[in-house]
Amino acid sequence: MDAIMLFGDSLTQGGWEPGGFAQRLAYKYARRMDIINRGLSGYNAAWGLEVFRQVFPRADQVGAQKIKLLVLWFGANDACLPPKVQHSPLPQFTENMNTLLTLVRDPTSPYHSPQTRLLLITPPPFSSLQRGAILRARTPPEPLDRDQATTRRYAAAVKAVGEAHGVPVVDIYEKLWEGAGGTEEGLGKYMQDGLHVNAEAYGILYELILASIAEHYPELHPDNLPFVFAPWDEMIRTEDPKATLKSRYRDV
Amino acid sequence: MDAIMLFGDSLTQGGWEPGGFAQRLAYKYARRMDIINRGLSGYNAAWGLEVFRQVFPRADQVGAQKIKLLVLWFGANDACLPPKVQHSPLPQFTENMNTLLTLVRDPTSPYHSPQTRLLLITPPPFSSLQRGAILRARTPPEPLDRDQATTRRYAAAVKAVGEAHGVPVVDIYEKLWEGAGGTEEGLGKYMQDGLHVNAEAYGILYELILASIAEHYPELHPDNLPFVFAPWDEMIRTEDPKATLKSRYRDV
Repeated sequence: MDAIMLFGDSLTQGGWEPGGFAQRLAYKYARRMDIINRGLSGYNAAWGLEVFRQVFPRADQVGAQKIKLLVLWFGANDACLPPKVQHSPLPQFTENMNTLLTLVRDPTSPYHSPQTRLLLITPPPFSSLQRGAILRARTPPEPLDRDQATTRRYAAAVKAVGEAHGVPVVDIYEKLWEGAGGTEEGLGKYMQDGLHVNAEAYGILYELILASIAEHYPELHPDNLPFVFAPWDEMIRTEDPKATLKSRYRDV
Repeated sequence: MDAIMLFGDSLTQGGWEPGGFAQRLAYKYARRMDIINRGLSGYNAAWGLEVFRQVFPRADQVGAQKIKLLVLWFGANDACLPPKVQHSPLPQFTENMNTLLTLVRDPTSPYHSPQTRLLLITPPPFSSLQRGAILRARTPPEPLDRDQATTRRYAAAVKAVGEAHGVPVVDIYEKLWEGAGGTEEGLGKYMQDGLHVNAEAYGILYELILASIAEHYPELHPDNLPFVFAPWDEMIRTEDPKATLKSRYRDV
């Protein structure tokens, strides 16, 4: 089976929660494409880049699963305030996101993959109300490690990277911020802890991703991908069961 | 990443539902092992066998992901009553399940995989009350296509196959039947439609699978598998970020 790879931080790793975007995509793409979740809780794009070079198939790699779509979702940890170890200055973050795209697109890259479509997701808005309450309750209390204006700048950087490379961007930052009425109070319905989104927000993200696929990569939309193996009720009509049960994509 | 492959019918395919056993395993094994769902709605073991030969890595296949655990879950459709096309006579079903295990275990098999541990799941009990109501409501009404005693025999056959091969069996049939007080009325809390289990039953199955892994294959239990890539907070202490971010399993 071909695959969609989700690559990012805890927001991606948590996509396997019930109602998470990985779970929803896996359910929707069942028997069409696999969902590979390479979410790394707490990682920024710089650390992600090191891991990417170990998990993304190299161009000369024999027998690797085909990644038809790569979804990149970093920024939430890069936007940490110094002196947090996850902090990555904005120009560095932009460069790392550029590098991730270039690794896949540059014909001279060892990871060059012309068959891989790309999609970027902006980091979601941050709730200092929720996150602040959690950090203050720790022993000893911790100061706020992010702020809204900074996270917004990292979201804008993702959009700029997408525009520069002609890669579609799912702007979950803007969508949730609008849905929250532009206030951190309003974000409560979308977030678990001020940082991680809940099933409702994952559902919105899932719909935006499917809409973006429909618009930019319709050949990868689930409605346009037949089951790799025949639906069972074709077996009622077939005179050649073995042939009917052959993969529709590959000779094996 | 190494992987657990789930291979079966719609009960496996539906494992990607929120609360389904694939979703629960994927969440639990995140960053440890991938969950590959090869569930094929409506399939019996005979058709599954044809597909298995196309999806399970051949012994001579270069670069394939390592399947550390293969979970086989057939029987619910094999147990259909004739003349349903999915019906597979009990001796044929037993033979097909034997063949699936032998393909993986026999050193002369093209699919021989000594690194792959095996786990069998019995088909769940059947509720003629729920299923009967659904079939009667169709236009034209359809007769019952399964019965409890037959499904129970197919569940017993899976247990016998497991015993004969020394492969652990998760007996979800017995567990749900007991939980239902041994009546089809009692099954309502576990089933969506008399045939497919709901999130509560999937949760019970998930716990049984983890318990069986803990007992028979403790090296594959999530508690005994470190993250393939370092937890982010190791980056606070490290003096060599690149080395810290290396996969713990492979030189790449």
